[in-house]
Amino acid sequence: MKARQPTSFLFDLDGTLVDSVYDHVLAWHDALQKEGIEVSIWRIHRRIGMSGGLFTRALARETGLEFSDEALARMRSHHAAHYNAHSSNTKALPGARELLKYLTDNYIPWAIATSGRMATAGPVLKILGVDADKVPVVTRDLVAYAKPDPDLFLAAAEKLGIEIETACVVGDSIWDMLSAQRARALGIGFLSGGYGTDELQRSGAYRVFDDPADMLAHIDEIGGRR
Amino acid sequence: MKARQPTSFLFDLDGTLVDSVYDHVLAWHDALQKEGIEVSIWRIHRRIGMSGGLFTRALARETGLEFSDEALARMRSHHAAHYNAHSSNTKALPGARELLKYLTDNYIPWAIATSGRMATAGPVLKILGVDADKVPVVTRDLVAYAKPDPDLFLAAAEKLGIEIETACVVGDSIWDMLSAQRARALGIGFLSGGYGTDELQRSGAYRVFDDPADMLAHIDEIGGRR
Repeated sequence: MKARQPTSFLFDLDGTLVDSVYDHVLAWHDALQKEGIEVSIWRIHRRIGMSGGLFTRALARETGLEFSDEALARMRSHHAAHYNAHSSNTKALPGARELLKYLTDNYIPWAIATSGRMATAGPVLKILGVDADKVPVVTRDLVAYAKPDPDLFLAAAEKLGIEIETACVVGDSIWDMLSAQRARALGIGFLSGGYGTDELQRSGAYRVFDDPADMLAHIDEIGGRR
Repeated sequence: MKARQPTSFLFDLDGTLVDSVYDHVLAWHDALQKEGIEVSIWRIHRRIGMSGGLFTRALARETGLEFSDEALARMRSHHAAHYNAHSSNTKALPGARELLKYLTDNYIPWAIATSGRMATAGPVLKILGVDADKVPVVTRDLVAYAKPDPDLFLAAAEKLGIEIETACVVGDSIWDMLSAQRARALGIGFLSGGYGTDELQRSGAYRVFDDPADMLAHIDEIGGRR
């Protein structure tokens, strides 16, 4: 029998460890409105967490509009400005710090993999007290394709020096769960990004918890031991 | 055989006809933070549309805090101020005006029933071009208990002069669907408030559409004929 590697956890960031999804949703809505593009807010919500390039391409297809590179750059910059103006109160989700500390204290490998860029992820890592020099953090800047492609999680596993087939991907969106399947990791879904249980399960989550606190309360059921 | 009454439609307002749910969510989050109360944003999202009294009572139970009448009044006023400051761009959901016009043109009875008060619902009705003197509109001010109690929809049916058992309740939240069941109406769920299909079906929706435009495209399947 092949020796089993211990479980490791690859975390999404927005909506999974910090309570920032809704601010991102309204920041994108504002950026789109400024370009004269009307998209219902729930449709933006359902795309948060996927690659920004895929997001705008899907949007172009839905609306029948074409976006110039300049328009895309303006939208990204409007989004960042609106988000930064409203995110000063962004909080870690309940149990996020405790969960990461538990894993560290118990020598259980973990990393962070986000579709965002380091410029926006940096301040969020500070909220969590995560030191990107000590913990593997993979951002959009480091891979060719973001979620739902598996690259971010594959890179995070490589940084940890673990096999992706022994890892759990923890995220709040269907893009995390689809990435997990494509990477051959197990998916653990959180409700804290505003998706429903069923949406997460149907995109591949093998367990669904409310948030980091709820995962920590059930950590023994998902291989969380040293 | 008893003569069948034609179908009628009782509409929720926020998230069903106008794209205002996410603004309400962040306005409540801001109001709670101002009182020093930390609640994850998705938990607020999942309570939008229920009676404000039940919302704060459920919150008190979850957080273990007690809210004074003064704190509740401050929160309501903070919520209203934040919402009004951010809602100037609130738009009708796709197809909302067209759907209501179709029903009116085809002599199909319809009304609006919202857990909100007339003070906040008034500006929203203007966005829709609904004249509250011509269309029955039932707000929180007019009934003893809001959703998920059935009173709002029962009052709307009475104003229309129709039997509630022949009506469809159209809403975006599980509170609308639960109210529909308690009123013995059929529930029609919209995804436009950010709930998932499964959440709406499990709370009683017999059909789920994306938004008003999607319902109008399928109107013949749900009794929408004169």
